[in-house]
Amino acid sequence: MNLKEAIRNFPDFPRPGILFRDITSLLKDPAHFSEAISQIEAALNDLDYDIIIAPEARGFIFAAPIAIRQGKGFVLARKKGKLPGEVVSKDYFLEYGMDSIQIHKDDIKPGQKAVIIDDLLATGGTCKGICDIAEQLGAKVLRAVFLIELEGLDGRELLETSCEVAAVLKY
Amino acid sequence: MNLKEAIRNFPDFPRPGILFRDITSLLKDPAHFSEAISQIEAALNDLDYDIIIAPEARGFIFAAPIAIRQGKGFVLARKKGKLPGEVVSKDYFLEYGMDSIQIHKDDIKPGQKAVIIDDLLATGGTCKGICDIAEQLGAKVLRAVFLIELEGLDGRELLETSCEVAAVLKY
Repeated sequence: MNLKEAIRNFPDFPRPGILFRDITSLLKDPAHFSEAISQIEAALNDLDYDIIIAPEARGFIFAAPIAIRQGKGFVLARKKGKLPGEVVSKDYFLEYGMDSIQIHKDDIKPGQKAVIIDDLLATGGTCKGICDIAEQLGAKVLRAVFLIELEGLDGRELLETSCEVAAVLKY
Repeated sequence: MNLKEAIRNFPDFPRPGILFRDITSLLKDPAHFSEAISQIEAALNDLDYDIIIAPEARGFIFAAPIAIRQGKGFVLARKKGKLPGEVVSKDYFLEYGMDSIQIHKDDIKPGQKAVIIDDLLATGGTCKGICDIAEQLGAKVLRAVFLIELEGLDGRELLETSCEVAAVLKY
C-alpha cells in the first residue's frame, strides 16, 4: 500500500511558499489510516519505553491509537493556556512563526523513558521543545517517530541533538 | 474501575466560574485510558455507521483509537483556518465564547451514516455544528458519544434535536 498516494499536497497553505501535506484524505480511508498506524508502531517495536508524548492536535491522531495498542501512558504536549495544572513551558521556532509548548509537570516522572509521535517533522522545533521539557523533568525522550518528514528543513539535524528520529514517509 | 477517580477538577479554568474537568490524569494511566476507550466504544456497538467525526483537539484522542479498532473512516472537524481544502463551516456558541468549526467538503459523502466522538459535552455547540455540516453534505449523524457530560448546560437538549446522545460519565 502506497501511503503517499493518500496524502494530498496544497501549495501556499497556510502561507505563501509553504507546500502543505494534507493527511485528512489518508484518515478518511480506514485501510490507509490503519497502515499508517502500523508503520509508525513498527518504528518503535525494538524500543523499551514507558510513555508516549504527542503534540497537539494532529499528533494525537497517531499517538493515541498506539498508546492504546501498546498499553503506554499518554502525555499531551499542548499550546499555551490549554492545560489547567502546573506546566513546564518551552518556546520554540516553527516552520512559520514562533510558539510555545507546555506539558503538565506531573505527567512526566524522573527516570521515565519516553517516545514522541507526531504526524509531521518540519523544522523540529516543537519536538525539540518536548525533549527539553522531558529532560528538565528528569526523563529522556529516546526516539521521535513521524508519519511524514520534510527533508531540507534540518528538523532531523536539530532533533538528533536530543533523541533518535524515524519517519515513515519522506518528502 | 472508577474513571471519575482519574479525572481532576480545576476551578476557574480557563475562566472564572468554569470548573474544568481535566482528562490528562486519566490519559497518563494506561488502564484508565483503555477503559475509557472501551466504554465509549461500547456506547456505539449497537450501531451501523460509516465514519467517525471528531472535533479538535481532545476529540481526536478518543476517536482515533476507536476508528482504528472499528475500521471506520476518520473525519476531522477543525477550527477555522486549519484545513487546506474546500470546507463547510459552521459558527457556534460554546461554553465560553463563540467559535467556528470546519470540515473538508469531500470528507463526507451523501448518504453516509456518521457518529461523533468527543471528550466532553458542555453546551453542545461544537457537535451541533458538526451535525449541521453533515446534514448540509447529505449525511446524517446518528449518535454523539462523549466521555464526560456536564449536565445543567442543556447540551444534550440541543444535540438531541439532531442526533442521539450518549455519555460515559456525568457531572
